[in-house]
Amino acid sequence: MRETPIRVPGFRFAGVACGIKGGGKLDLALMHSDVPATVAAMFTRNRVKAAPVVIAARHTRRGRAQAVLINSGNANACTGAAGARVAIAACRQTSIALGISPYDVIPCSTGKIGVLLPAVPMVRGIAAAVRALDARGLWRAAHAMRTTDAFPKVAVRRVRVGGRAVTIAGLAKGAGMIAPDLATLLVCALTDARVAAPVLRRLVREAVATSFNAITVDGDMSTNDTVVALANGAAGNTPFAVASADGRRFGAALTAVMRTLADMVVADGEGATKCVRIEVTGAATVAAARRVARSVAESQLVKTALYGGDPNWGRIVCAAGYAGVALAPERLRVAIAGIPVLRRGEPAPDAAVRRAAGAMRRVSFTVSIDLGSGRATATVTTSDLTPAYVRFNSAYST
Amino acid sequence: MRETPIRVPGFRFAGVACGIKGGGKLDLALMHSDVPATVAAMFTRNRVKAAPVVIAARHTRRGRAQAVLINSGNANACTGAAGARVAIAACRQTSIALGISPYDVIPCSTGKIGVLLPAVPMVRGIAAAVRALDARGLWRAAHAMRTTDAFPKVAVRRVRVGGRAVTIAGLAKGAGMIAPDLATLLVCALTDARVAAPVLRRLVREAVATSFNAITVDGDMSTNDTVVALANGAAGNTPFAVASADGRRFGAALTAVMRTLADMVVADGEGATKCVRIEVTGAATVAAARRVARSVAESQLVKTALYGGDPNWGRIVCAAGYAGVALAPERLRVAIAGIPVLRRGEPAPDAAVRRAAGAMRRVSFTVSIDLGSGRATATVTTSDLTPAYVRFNSAYST
Repeated sequence: MRETPIRVPGFRFAGVACGIKGGGKLDLALMHSDVPATVAAMFTRNRVKAAPVVIAARHTRRGRAQAVLINSGNANACTGAAGARVAIAACRQTSIALGISPYDVIPCSTGKIGVLLPAVPMVRGIAAAVRALDARGLWRAAHAMRTTDAFPKVAVRRVRVGGRAVTIAGLAKGAGMIAPDLATLLVCALTDARVAAPVLRRLVREAVATSFNAITVDGDMSTNDTVVALANGAAGNTPFAVASADGRRFGAALTAVMRTLADMVVADGEGATKCVRIEVTGAATVAAARRVARSVAESQLVKTALYGGDPNWGRIVCAAGYAGVALAPERLRVAIAGIPVLRRGEPAPDAAVRRAAGAMRRVSFTVSIDLGSGRATATVTTSDLTPAYVRFNSAYST
Repeated sequence: MRETPIRVPGFRFAGVACGIKGGGKLDLALMHSDVPATVAAMFTRNRVKAAPVVIAARHTRRGRAQAVLINSGNANACTGAAGARVAIAACRQTSIALGISPYDVIPCSTGKIGVLLPAVPMVRGIAAAVRALDARGLWRAAHAMRTTDAFPKVAVRRVRVGGRAVTIAGLAKGAGMIAPDLATLLVCALTDARVAAPVLRRLVREAVATSFNAITVDGDMSTNDTVVALANGAAGNTPFAVASADGRRFGAALTAVMRTLADMVVADGEGATKCVRIEVTGAATVAAARRVARSVAESQLVKTALYGGDPNWGRIVCAAGYAGVALAPERLRVAIAGIPVLRRGEPAPDAAVRRAAGAMRRVSFTVSIDLGSGRATATVTTSDLTPAYVRFNSAYST
């Protein structure tokens, strides 16, 4: 991807090498708003939460923030009271250097679990990052967030709200194959729009529901997953409500940014060779549609069949069957890349199955499942399960 | 395994090649009791149930049966009304040939989904199987149940109840790696003990809870899973209640048979190289212990680490964390093969981690997780996730 310069008015960025990873690799990112911004955040529901997650949840609850500090190479998870102290000290140092409140700094970490985040590189790195802050530094920050990501993940949309053109930029890290150190998903969305904290919170929740909460790689939920959005109001637009035309437009743009980033996460990783949409229609409720889509998307047998290019609708129907949702097998329809392979419980002719097998050679296609029992739909994007995934995740040695 | 002859008084067995698989491979098994037996059965909870599962559920509900007919090579699942007709016809033909009620025949199928069970091989095969019935035929029947199983699975226990020595023999099919055609789990337990149907039902449920419901290979639940137990009373023992000393002794023996078979299922398969017990202690409730054990046992990241011999307690703690059970990270203890790698949330010294890595080279070991918040326990047995699993399950072409 060409790294075309991206600016978000009122924000400056830095990505520096502080020595956590070693070898001069970028491992500390800092995003800073010139003025206090409204903030909305979502965190992992894993009961084992990394120290920075606990602190970030506390800091974002107030609805305002001014900086996001992200280190890669160390998750600062399962590190007890010492880990919490390092994370709090990092917020304090950042706040002093920037002249803001420590509560306005949102800390995030990603990397290995169970290793104390080293204080000395953090102290040096924060000082360097503050010095390096630059309105043109967004890509460097995206690079510094990476762990096993093959490429930095950035998406941007511009949209007109409240009489002004505003920018929404998103930075993410997370590799589709789920990395050895637990591919923490970290997402930072930054906008110069003026958005009230409750409105931002609602729109972030909606955008995440159909993006980061609608992808699955291996069903493993990390200790560090964090999505944080800052809106600094530099655009000077008039505020808007969730249900207004502006609210819908802004929400759609935010969702587009998050979906683009989410697709990048699935597509990334040595292991994955395909990005497949599992689209469920005809469900009685959205919850039922989501359960079926997720069950199919997470089935190891389905995922190996996706890798092998095998239009094995039996595995798809089987995974739908154990999703815990009432369904009538005789009404099921399954299509792969638009080619029906099962209609109302009856297998398609061999020729159709062969065409479906051909279509599965593509790197991206859709598996459609119609339950024939309602009008609700849901889509989950998944990757294939490959020998490379297993090799990569098993070769790692502590 | 040496196939030492096993007899269960009052039962005869057959395993024949009827032509479903072709190449002269055994693919039809028949078990027959000289007299009507009490029966207890459990079936897949998959909403998509194969035709024989629906019929077997109906037939076993009455609490008595006299024959079990199992074909391999074809699951007779997702085959609509035509599939049901073939299964019903097979029961009828078997019943006529044996001179018993068609409702006393329990049909089971295992193999490929979505292909109609061919009637002609079944008709010829049933005739041949009835002719071949032999008190010494148990191993041949076990062979005829196999699909991708590397070896037939048989276990036997003798126990004294109600004044008589009784035999409990178990036959199972199911490959640890979960086969391309959905490794249906089929289990048939046969005993000459006299056991009332409600007692048998209860004891089968208890035995399954800690055996077949406590193993996981890939979390995929097939459309055909069936466990069926027949007790024909040939031993002439006095009947017993569940809670009696005899009931406990019989239940323990039945559980031992099922656990042995369950371990064989996990150990089987080209893909799996290890059989690992995930043992959770210190949980608030048994349900909580089971959820954590299952979450860890099914985590792809844990399973690849088991394959790689990596004592990655971070992945274990992470999977415990998303099990949906309240837990206190600072009280967690994790041991691998008895070697502590995490104590009360604090990592063990490197030397211990190295010793744990060494122990993980074994083909079988235990991962112990103490939640430190109660006295309930649960164990789930799992296999490792290997490149061979992925290759095998993706190479299969429809």
